[in-house]
Amino acid sequence: MINKRKTKKKRVGIIGAGPSGLAQLRAFEAAKHAGLEVPEVVCFEKQSNWGGMWNYSWRTGVGKYGEPIHGSMYKYLWSNGPKECLEFSDYSFDEHFKKPISSYPPRPVLFDYIQGRIKKNKIRDYIRFDTTARWVNYNDETEKFEVVFDDLKIDKTYTEEFDYLVVASGHFSTPNMPYFKGIEQFPGQVMHAHDFRGADPYKDQDILIIGSSYSAEDIGVQCHKHGAKSVTLSYRSNPIGVNWPESIKEVPLLTHFKDDIAYFKDGTSERFDAVIMCTGYQHKFPFLPDEFRLKTKNNLYPDHLYKGVFFNNLPKLIYLGMQDQYYTFNMFDAQAWLARDYMMDKFEMPSRRERRVDIDRWLEANDKLEDSFDHVDFQGAYIKDLLKLSDYPDFNVDEVGVMFKEWLKDKDDNILTYRDKTFKSVVTGTMAETHHTEWMDELDDSKERYLYQEESEEALEEVVGKQPV
Amino acid sequence: MINKRKTKKKRVGIIGAGPSGLAQLRAFEAAKHAGLEVPEVVCFEKQSNWGGMWNYSWRTGVGKYGEPIHGSMYKYLWSNGPKECLEFSDYSFDEHFKKPISSYPPRPVLFDYIQGRIKKNKIRDYIRFDTTARWVNYNDETEKFEVVFDDLKIDKTYTEEFDYLVVASGHFSTPNMPYFKGIEQFPGQVMHAHDFRGADPYKDQDILIIGSSYSAEDIGVQCHKHGAKSVTLSYRSNPIGVNWPESIKEVPLLTHFKDDIAYFKDGTSERFDAVIMCTGYQHKFPFLPDEFRLKTKNNLYPDHLYKGVFFNNLPKLIYLGMQDQYYTFNMFDAQAWLARDYMMDKFEMPSRRERRVDIDRWLEANDKLEDSFDHVDFQGAYIKDLLKLSDYPDFNVDEVGVMFKEWLKDKDDNILTYRDKTFKSVVTGTMAETHHTEWMDELDDSKERYLYQEESEEALEEVVGKQPV
Repeated sequence: MINKRKTKKKRVGIIGAGPSGLAQLRAFEAAKHAGLEVPEVVCFEKQSNWGGMWNYSWRTGVGKYGEPIHGSMYKYLWSNGPKECLEFSDYSFDEHFKKPISSYPPRPVLFDYIQGRIKKNKIRDYIRFDTTARWVNYNDETEKFEVVFDDLKIDKTYTEEFDYLVVASGHFSTPNMPYFKGIEQFPGQVMHAHDFRGADPYKDQDILIIGSSYSAEDIGVQCHKHGAKSVTLSYRSNPIGVNWPESIKEVPLLTHFKDDIAYFKDGTSERFDAVIMCTGYQHKFPFLPDEFRLKTKNNLYPDHLYKGVFFNNLPKLIYLGMQDQYYTFNMFDAQAWLARDYMMDKFEMPSRRERRVDIDRWLEANDKLEDSFDHVDFQGAYIKDLLKLSDYPDFNVDEVGVMFKEWLKDKDDNILTYRDKTFKSVVTGTMAETHHTEWMDELDDSKERYLYQEESEEALEEVVGKQPV
Repeated sequence: MINKRKTKKKRVGIIGAGPSGLAQLRAFEAAKHAGLEVPEVVCFEKQSNWGGMWNYSWRTGVGKYGEPIHGSMYKYLWSNGPKECLEFSDYSFDEHFKKPISSYPPRPVLFDYIQGRIKKNKIRDYIRFDTTARWVNYNDETEKFEVVFDDLKIDKTYTEEFDYLVVASGHFSTPNMPYFKGIEQFPGQVMHAHDFRGADPYKDQDILIIGSSYSAEDIGVQCHKHGAKSVTLSYRSNPIGVNWPESIKEVPLLTHFKDDIAYFKDGTSERFDAVIMCTGYQHKFPFLPDEFRLKTKNNLYPDHLYKGVFFNNLPKLIYLGMQDQYYTFNMFDAQAWLARDYMMDKFEMPSRRERRVDIDRWLEANDKLEDSFDHVDFQGAYIKDLLKLSDYPDFNVDEVGVMFKEWLKDKDDNILTYRDKTFKSVVTGTMAETHHTEWMDELDDSKERYLYQEESEEALEEVVGKQPV
């Protein structure tokens, strides 16, 4: 009897146990706690631990089992937006840390927060780690996804069937790296931001960063903070344009290299020790037949996704977190809750044509956006649209939008001190603490150091094993 | 009529257009030139050009289309064995270069040589570039391989059927990278040899190399040649043990790091600027179901391959070049010629049990080998076994073995000058030229510089654009 019931259950496959995949697991867990019968859910994660990007790896290139490394994060990475803008509305920072913390925590602290919610809910059992999806076949007759998995640890492949497939494999993992004439002869290190693991090797060096993205901005500032002699950012269309410190500057696009000299569009040239390409990422889904692949550039509303998640040609194929992002964890949650309701037959899917009309409406609005403030408002409107459709705990999206705009202004004002500012949680009303050390003076990004409460200099020294800065 | 004949033709799929895949194409082309009817052959190559390893890429991590980078070669890579030991017996160095050259050419010169034979035979038309194999299904009913390919350039997947599948995708592409305690906190660059692209960034630095392989030996020497302050090689079991110059030394295995200090098994410790892991490669076939994967460590006679090529459980699945290698191009040829004959029904496959007995005989012999000289003899015997079975032009395998032993002694004597030695071709009888510049003084690895014939210092200066060394 139990067996029969079990086999009748719908099956959901989730690819990836990063913030998006974990949001999906959490969404089902919330329904289960509410007494609802949920489908059988299995999550497959290529890495040995959850957290996606937030699961730092010292490795670059490929991992232990020869799969491309997922993580693009680096040592000394601190949140580049206020934590109040990404707070889970069902698990606050206060609940996790039991005390107010600053608005811009380092990676290990945010990773700890992400894990808190799912540890509490025993979500680990749903995840098969060290397992990568090799190939997906959608069977038109059975209307099921047949997915070939590769259990990397034991070098074993197997196939499983799912009624729904949730692709939560991220889109900041596969570097986009253009060619520049002469780069093959550049004698120094050339790498993509994806392979950047910390600024230490660039001490006293002249660094060329190509790009004007968040990566370019943050890696540039990190290199400056950790002792690079100079940082030059080369932009294609527009400079980042904040108030840079003296040793950071922006120049137009690189045209070519001759040995270790880089030449730029404005006719200038300069010698560099190393090149870091912050030239973005590709949406890449090698395990999917191309007709099911989301083919898009990084933007706020990728085409072909109804409500930003349901693949319009086959809504049982669900993509999470594929948007360019202001809102992050809370947006993934809002998406996952809606996706869950659809998979539990609690959200009625409109017709394909209706979906198309809805998508087009968002695409048109997206086309009209002019500046960053518009982008924030647009993504806020998208999230409000999602929140209407599920029971994910409501949060004040507009107030978060105000914080994003504040943050944008703070960065413009001073790129080196914006992380010293504090914001107020829309979930708990708690005002963030000012951190014990100004960001530019804080060279240790460990959780222990971050959460340390000042009592005496000696205590801190004991905790972190080095002279406090 | 023609169509009908065409559809009746057997189809051969070759994965990879490196030296092994190209040898397979060349083998079929030779049969075609001899007037035989050959199967329909298609070769699929992930990269945009042929040559496998020899097709140098400045990229590391993933390529233009987000696939793992194949190449492990670097700037200033020179052959680390005499070219006379890898000469094609159907296309000599004399035929290609029209004059004697030295015994240890740089990579671009050997790449040029590899291409010469296939350009002459218009082999390019058989190859679909920028195309990777995603997944192979062997259909027991049709007895065909159904292979899903991904045309990376146009982001399109498609399936084709083959009677035979030749896996020539190499096994020096997927890094094996062990973890050492504390490595995640090492502040300098940490990379696998696969991602090493040249010694320049290590000028005046103290470099730690982990491993005692060819990569360790050669990257160590390259770093020394190009100005590293010191090179330390850490070995697991045995040191390389050649006469190192003063600034290169070998130490026992690394136990752990503490910041930038490495600790070794013998209790010593030292500070380093960068770590290069020359810790070998994995045989990795992500596109194959695990029951068809060759699962082996790098060794001279991987189990499960009859005559070193036919997968014993399914001989229509053919692996080329999967052995650890003294002999290279000429061994791939001997393998490809035999594989061709089998695919053209000209080589009768013995029973599975007979094949097993043959494999076991080789495995037993392999187990008894004691030193490098034994290894050379063993691989020589294997190649002679292959040569008996096909019409690949015979060559003096024993004489090549003698050269390998000479080479091993030369390296022992002086690791910095062994590349200045010369050998005599077993194909043409030609004695190699002494190169115009001693290897340690030659910092330019271009083909132009290499093939330059000294007339005047000024002429050379003109050719290579810099002061001759």
